[in-house]
Order: sequence, then C-alpha cells, then structure tokens
Amino acid sequence: MKVSLIGAGRVATHLATAFYARNIQIQQIVSRNITHAEHLAQQVEAIALDDIEQLTQVDIVLIAVSDAQIATVARQLAAINYSGLVVHTSGSTHLQVLQDENLQAGVFYPLQSFSFDQSLDWESTPLFLEATQQSDLQKLDRLAGVLSKKIYHYDSNQRLSLHLAAVFASNFSNYCYDIAEQILQQHQVDQHLILPLVLQTAQKLQYASAAQNQTGPARRHDQNIMDLHLDMLNPHPEWQEIYAMLSTAIKHRHPIA
Amino acid sequence: MKVSLIGAGRVATHLATAFYARNIQIQQIVSRNITHAEHLAQQVEAIALDDIEQLTQVDIVLIAVSDAQIATVARQLAAINYSGLVVHTSGSTHLQVLQDENLQAGVFYPLQSFSFDQSLDWESTPLFLEATQQSDLQKLDRLAGVLSKKIYHYDSNQRLSLHLAAVFASNFSNYCYDIAEQILQQHQVDQHLILPLVLQTAQKLQYASAAQNQTGPARRHDQNIMDLHLDMLNPHPEWQEIYAMLSTAIKHRHPIA
Repeated sequence: MKVSLIGAGRVATHLATAFYARNIQIQQIVSRNITHAEHLAQQVEAIALDDIEQLTQVDIVLIAVSDAQIATVARQLAAINYSGLVVHTSGSTHLQVLQDENLQAGVFYPLQSFSFDQSLDWESTPLFLEATQQSDLQKLDRLAGVLSKKIYHYDSNQRLSLHLAAVFASNFSNYCYDIAEQILQQHQVDQHLILPLVLQTAQKLQYASAAQNQTGPARRHDQNIMDLHLDMLNPHPEWQEIYAMLSTAIKHRHPIA
Repeated sequence: MKVSLIGAGRVATHLATAFYARNIQIQQIVSRNITHAEHLAQQVEAIALDDIEQLTQVDIVLIAVSDAQIATVARQLAAINYSGLVVHTSGSTHLQVLQDENLQAGVFYPLQSFSFDQSLDWESTPLFLEATQQSDLQKLDRLAGVLSKKIYHYDSNQRLSLHLAAVFASNFSNYCYDIAEQILQQHQVDQHLILPLVLQTAQKLQYASAAQNQTGPARRHDQNIMDLHLDMLNPHPEWQEIYAMLSTAIKHRHPIA
C-alpha cells in the first residue's frame, strides 16, 4: 500500500514515521513550507512537495493539517480533480467537509495526545475510521491494522462526541489539577502530595463509573465545608466561580434522596 | 501506646483496625450508637461506650466523627474536664476548634479517600500532624510512624489548602470524567475508549506540572472548535456553562503571546 501525506507537523510526523517503520511506502509529503516537507520526507524516503498540484495517484492521501485548514486543502484537491481516496485525521471535523468538495472521502482519527518528544504506543492507540464506500473502509482497515489493534468504525457525530468527551476527561481534568497545584504552591505545600490521590481517582474508572466513584463535600451536600472553601477562594474569583458551578452540578447529579 | 477513638464510622474503623494490627492498644470506642461502637470494639478488643463521660485516660484520644460534629464532641470533652491529648482527623477543620474548648489539641489527618470495601495502603498514605506543644507533636509522630512512611507537619491553613486542592484534583476531575462518560453514552460510543487518555493525563503529572501539560482547543485558543463543542452541548446548558467557564479560565492561564 502506498500513501501520501499533506502536512508535516506533529501528527503527520508521527503517522509518517510509524507507517515507514511498518513498511508502508510513503510517496509524497506536501507542506506549504518546503523545508518542513523536506525534513520529514528525508526521514521516510519520500518526495517533498510544496505544491498540492503535483500530488500523484496513491492508495490513500492523508490530510494531517490543523482543523481550520482542512476545508482549504479539500478545495485545492477538488480544483485539480484529484480522484483517489482522501482522508482527514481530525477528531472534530465532519466527513462532510471533504464530501462537500466531491472528494472520495474518509476519516482516519487517532485518539491520542501527540507530544513532540514522546514516542507513541500505537498498538494501544484507538483509531476511528469512517468512509462513505465500503471498499474505502476496508482499505482504511488494512492501513489502520498495521498500526493498532484497536480499530473502530464510528460515524462523524460519534467521533465528534469522542473529541468533546476527551476535552472534559483530559483537558478540563488537567486544568483542575493545575488549580490544585497553584493552591498548594500558594500555601507552601509540596505539590506532589496530591499525586497519589490523582492517580487513584483516574485508576478507579477501570472498576466503576465516574458517577459511582464521586466523593467530596458537594457529593455529600456538605454546605459548611463548601462555604469554607469558597471563603478560602476569595482572592481568586475565577476559581471561586468554577468551584461553585462544579459543586452545583455535582449536587444536581447526586440529589439527596 | 494506648489510644481511644470517638466515632465508629469509616475513618474510625480504618484507623482502629490498622492500629490494632500494629499492636497499638485500643482502650475504648465511643459512639452515640452503641451497636456501632460494639461492632468495632469487638474487632479490636476494646471497650464500647455510648457516653463520652466514661472516657478514661489514654495517651491520645482520636476524634473521627463528621466535620460538623467535631465542635460538639470538643464541648462534651471540655464539660468533663478531659485533660489528655485530643486530636481530630479532619482535613478541613481548624485546630482552633479544639483549642477554643481549652483542650490539649492536635490533628492527625490522613489524605486518602476511604472506601467501605477497599483495604488501605497505609504506608503510602500521607499523614498530616499538628499540635501546639512540641511533646504532643512527638507523641503524634510516634503514632503516625506505626502506620505510614509519609509524615508531614503542616499548620491548619496549609492542611485546609490541601483539602481544597484535593477537591479540585480529585472530586472535580472525577466529575469531568462523569460528563465525558455521559456524552459518550448519549452517542452510543464505548465509554472505556477514553480510559487510556484519562490515565495518561494523570500520569503525566509525575514528569511535568499540569500547566506545562495543558493541551486542547482552549489552550490553542481555537475558537472554531470551542464554538462547535458549545453547539453540541446545546441540550445540556449546565455542561455548556462549565465548558465555557473552564475554557475561559484556560485561555486566561495561557494567553497568546
């Protein structure tokens, strides 16, 4: 199987090097910045391009650019009447964005947070595939199977819900850790002291739902402690508002019988 | 060393059985509910009481009742002129609550979420000690050393900040997991798919601060994706408000250069 990549950033680099290591031939790397394209192309024995018009026929073209640029790339492919399978790699972009340009469209979305320096455990990374044609989905299945054992067929709305859920479960929980670390710092308390609790809270999800695991003053409707905490947060109105809002939501979720 | 416990609930039970297993003699267990007192006393070869007036002299009396009842218990101890070291086990109660009743006061606070069914890893549970007299603090050190290797001397304000930080890092992050699970459920997506991401987000704290680890649309100030997500949350105004508020806070925390 032969693929080409549009994009030379974090996701494109992780994908290209992983494919290359698994004997998937990378034909071309396209980036508006030819230096970026060349840098990645060199690592995977591909041809570097800065002009989408020079894209040749391969089995699958993967678009790995920022969400905001996907529609632009789709328009450029439509303008040259590109006729092969074109898939994007975004969690929050609808398949429709490619179909709107009459492309043979699909999605190849890895649910993962891509760091510059860390190598990925691709085998355990869930891959979400989507295509309008059954034969295209089979093609994506074969490509995905080279990387991961966790392959799922979900439609665009389900994939979008996954990304939204990930924002709550990862980005927002991390921001709660951030507030906790800042509170401890301000009181000259060692920030690492909450680490065991954080890990325990995350690990508990393996055995029970988050709703079942919920504890704390809001869960107990303990207004005395909540008032004390809100008082302590007086110098930080934004955290105070977050505390009040999340506590209210937890109380709604767990009403007193 | 001889101790007595006031309370026969979750924390009292975990403490009493752990002390008993480590050859600390438990003299008396006091509970308003004599059946509860008897049940626990039997497990640790102690005497069950439902009347605080019958408390005899021991090295340390530990109060393990709900936060709201600590002041009441302190008043009862003052009423009988109890003269020994009296410590409470609460994260969010000031030492002053005991001092106000002229008791020889201290704190013995384990930072842990106590489950009914799960046995505790006491060795890795941080214990926070406080006392007004140096000799009392040494006494608490000896008792704590029997249970844990992680013993800290922090004052009441620092301990209160730890509990507040724990609410953000554990209770609120868990509620974010809960929202994520509900979103996936509503879109017929397997809830376990976000587990690797949740664990990865928690584990990353071992290597960098939460601020350094922050990712997501709010961190990138990607308004298109945030608008899409807010739109998807239209049927859930409470989650929508939480999404907007946390995203705004993340944008404030990470302004664009």
